[in-house]
Amino acid sequence: MRHVISALVQNVPGVLSHISGMLASRGYNIDSLAVGETEDRQLSRMTYVVVGDEKVREQVLKQLRKIVTVVRAEDLTDKNHVERDLMLIKVEALPGARSKVLEMVNIFRAQVVDVSDTSMMIEVSGKEAKLEGFVDTMRPFGIIELVRSGIIAMPRGE
Amino acid sequence: MRHVISALVQNVPGVLSHISGMLASRGYNIDSLAVGETEDRQLSRMTYVVVGDEKVREQVLKQLRKIVTVVRAEDLTDKNHVERDLMLIKVEALPGARSKVLEMVNIFRAQVVDVSDTSMMIEVSGKEAKLEGFVDTMRPFGIIELVRSGIIAMPRGE
Repeated sequence: MRHVISALVQNVPGVLSHISGMLASRGYNIDSLAVGETEDRQLSRMTYVVVGDEKVREQVLKQLRKIVTVVRAEDLTDKNHVERDLMLIKVEALPGARSKVLEMVNIFRAQVVDVSDTSMMIEVSGKEAKLEGFVDTMRPFGIIELVRSGIIAMPRGE
Repeated sequence: MRHVISALVQNVPGVLSHISGMLASRGYNIDSLAVGETEDRQLSRMTYVVVGDEKVREQVLKQLRKIVTVVRAEDLTDKNHVERDLMLIKVEALPGARSKVLEMVNIFRAQVVDVSDTSMMIEVSGKEAKLEGFVDTMRPFGIIELVRSGIIAMPRGE
């Protein structure tokens, strides 16, 4: 099972290392991790996707909450929440193939952010499944490079 | 100075902890970190934003390249590259304030992803400065929650 864990942490050196060391030492399988600023300069938010059973979930939360620099940690998986992921993907696109790539870009509501003689770089955000669908669509053209942010998540309003 | 470091790493448990431990032990200041899948299931890409002088930059790259699970590491800052960041932001929006929030959403080409009686959740992607501009615009309405992916980056086509 896949758990989306969101942790609000103090923005101090070592907190990331502390948390990822804890997760690694227990052999938890982290699918993705995104660490970014919040509205408060003293706090960062980390979003982890951890794969494991109910026991793993409990352990991860328990361990996170033990760390003094962790202000709050919760599993959003069971809550009504929104997940998003961001991707930049560079594909082969000689002039003859560009219109076909563009067609897919429009279908997926993606955006072309750079074009060269032989390639196009595309930005796409959305749910994980959408990004994976887009990657599959781009595969026949030839993927040169791909970078993803990892998932960020937020509970819906009450 | 701000450096955008991109590292292609083997997708094995412990690699994240190893790298962030190395960065923490030297006291480097990490502004953001995004770890996501690539087109190859065996590899992940980590994008770090590290603040420091030329010496810090050299040291970070040297240390990263020493780690056996790091396939490639480069500083994209001096290269012609594209940077993107993703944000979910929940703001207070009673029915009377919604149209004002929506106006800003349209100006920033953001997207409303959830609405409740008292709040709106908005997704926005783009350069760091754009996201910061949007946060400033939303502050007067009241920010309830904010999560960012951290920066991802890719060199432009030749």
